[in-house]
Amino acid sequence: MDSRLEVTYAFSADSLDSAAERARAIALEQTVELPAGSYPERIEREVVARVGSIELESDDRWKATLSFDPRLVGGDVPQLLNLIFGNVSIHADVQVLHVEWPETLVQALPGPAYGIDGFRTLVPAAAGRPLLLGATKPIGLSVAELAKNCRDLARGGMDIIKDDHSLTDQATAPFRERVEACLDAVAGARRADRPAAHYFPNVTAPFDVLPERVETARGLGCRGIVVSPFLVGLDVLRWLAESSGMVVLAHPTHAGGLLSPSHGIAAPVLFGELLRILGADAVIFMNPGGRFVVTDEDADAIVMRLQQPRAGVRPALPVLGGGVDAETVPRWIERYGIDVMVLVGSSLYAQADLETASARLLDVVERCCHG
Amino acid sequence: MDSRLEVTYAFSADSLDSAAERARAIALEQTVELPAGSYPERIEREVVARVGSIELESDDRWKATLSFDPRLVGGDVPQLLNLIFGNVSIHADVQVLHVEWPETLVQALPGPAYGIDGFRTLVPAAAGRPLLLGATKPIGLSVAELAKNCRDLARGGMDIIKDDHSLTDQATAPFRERVEACLDAVAGARRADRPAAHYFPNVTAPFDVLPERVETARGLGCRGIVVSPFLVGLDVLRWLAESSGMVVLAHPTHAGGLLSPSHGIAAPVLFGELLRILGADAVIFMNPGGRFVVTDEDADAIVMRLQQPRAGVRPALPVLGGGVDAETVPRWIERYGIDVMVLVGSSLYAQADLETASARLLDVVERCCHG
Repeated sequence: MDSRLEVTYAFSADSLDSAAERARAIALEQTVELPAGSYPERIEREVVARVGSIELESDDRWKATLSFDPRLVGGDVPQLLNLIFGNVSIHADVQVLHVEWPETLVQALPGPAYGIDGFRTLVPAAAGRPLLLGATKPIGLSVAELAKNCRDLARGGMDIIKDDHSLTDQATAPFRERVEACLDAVAGARRADRPAAHYFPNVTAPFDVLPERVETARGLGCRGIVVSPFLVGLDVLRWLAESSGMVVLAHPTHAGGLLSPSHGIAAPVLFGELLRILGADAVIFMNPGGRFVVTDEDADAIVMRLQQPRAGVRPALPVLGGGVDAETVPRWIERYGIDVMVLVGSSLYAQADLETASARLLDVVERCCHG
Repeated sequence: MDSRLEVTYAFSADSLDSAAERARAIALEQTVELPAGSYPERIEREVVARVGSIELESDDRWKATLSFDPRLVGGDVPQLLNLIFGNVSIHADVQVLHVEWPETLVQALPGPAYGIDGFRTLVPAAAGRPLLLGATKPIGLSVAELAKNCRDLARGGMDIIKDDHSLTDQATAPFRERVEACLDAVAGARRADRPAAHYFPNVTAPFDVLPERVETARGLGCRGIVVSPFLVGLDVLRWLAESSGMVVLAHPTHAGGLLSPSHGIAAPVLFGELLRILGADAVIFMNPGGRFVVTDEDADAIVMRLQQPRAGVRPALPVLGGGVDAETVPRWIERYGIDVMVLVGSSLYAQADLETASARLLDVVERCCHG
């Protein structure tokens, strides 16, 4: 028999009895959405989530593990999200704390097509150290200005330069024109001692336009793309992993609704497991201590879960973002090792010259890793 | 000059100075995502959000109105979401309280293709009273069982019967087979004294499959569909309104991440304005007093904002869901008038016979409205 999809929810309750009642309410809400008994008896056995253990988590906070038949999902990602955190998202104070992903479900999803090994193959210059990710930005710059940023970042030694996540197809820098110019800029910035950097355009786009953006990027020779799955639906990650042929970098914008302290989906499950299982080759998350609400423990768990072996799913590259600079980068390398990518934006742009700033960052990273 | 997109954010701060600092941080985060000054001077004027009024909201809660150039969006819905509540979603305790939608932006989006008037035309039997919406459910039932539910609900007098939002393409009731059988069941249940009910299938589906589900529904003669935009990306609503040719009913599953009391997007803005402007003809939300976290004030505001005139955007039908029954329905009609749709699920299924239960509900509603 197939194993079941086990989801541990944390929620408020004032006694074991009321916790049990809430757990049963979640089991019904997330499957039949009907009062117990108002459906055929076989549906209770086959469809309604089963309530397993119920434990006190802390003070008035309880956790309950519910299990679902994975056949309720198949490989349908919107339905997976609906089953895990659908209508129950509109109940008060419910958080998905932990998920056990059954083999059948994981096998039905692509996972990363490239993963950490694929990134390493793409960027041989980064052997033995973290990859360096820069961004060309901000919105409002012309194509020529954005391309110049790509050139300077590449010359300075950044391995990959991505579009800022706000760059779509604005009139100031239309998509196709921007991709052509940025690819040219990066190719032209090749240094004699190393392979050229890569430019990843942002393919986040309207529903009916997104496929042609991906096709344009691939047709022009891009080896990777960046997408904001929380803006366009998480299933886009699965589709890109299956069909794009390019490395897929996931950006976290708009994810924060799910990251409240006692409501949503715990950051390690969301960033460390779900995005990887769906097919992100690299996952940008927010390093702790920056301007975003991520705790040290969550960041550690995200990194570990992206990197660790999982049957049938390639490891994905954790991308540290949100306030990393040349001063702090050695600490991150010490903490997380070299199998990460470091996204450095603000601290480079705050310096007079992007190329020099990038070169200084690369120097710090190389000295840190190669002594 | 075009008017600007004005967004009022509420957030915590302990003084006017720190509130002003947070407002400026949001202005930068949501546009350039760079430190002030590390970009050309014209970008400050043209791209960075402008901070307008800053006011104390209550205790340590402040609100600040920021304005954005709508050209940063064009008609790109993912970028609209990103601009309003993108990276800032990952800051602590920030809520979008209010939005002023500029004319150019509203005109670039379709709005409801049918709206309340379209629903009224589709369901002439409901003249002078709220429309009645039933659901065939739960997942796990066979196609024949789901079709029988449609028949019973239609015979009893429900105007529209939608798929449960968890029904996708599971093996127990594959999409095409289910749509054919449910359409037949509803047509066969036509009563001599009134037009046939309508069946709306759930087209929520994987990214690359959704268009063919819509095409199948249209090809088989459906006049409407239900979709869960928070599972597949809000832009799907815009696309459906522009291209499906069918009435579009939006389901709120998975929306709850955005509905925390002090974080996310205020329910009246999300359900009452955004979903309508994007193109939902009817919006299911959760009536207060049920099992969902919606206050009386929010529910009132959602209904009012969906119904009220707005230049260039048809009114959309508010759909009261989540615990409505024959006992409470007169109160809802008294509160919100007849231009609503009433979604009744659990209370019908809890009764022995769906047809009788539906007929009783219709009777209550008709007596309430026609005396």
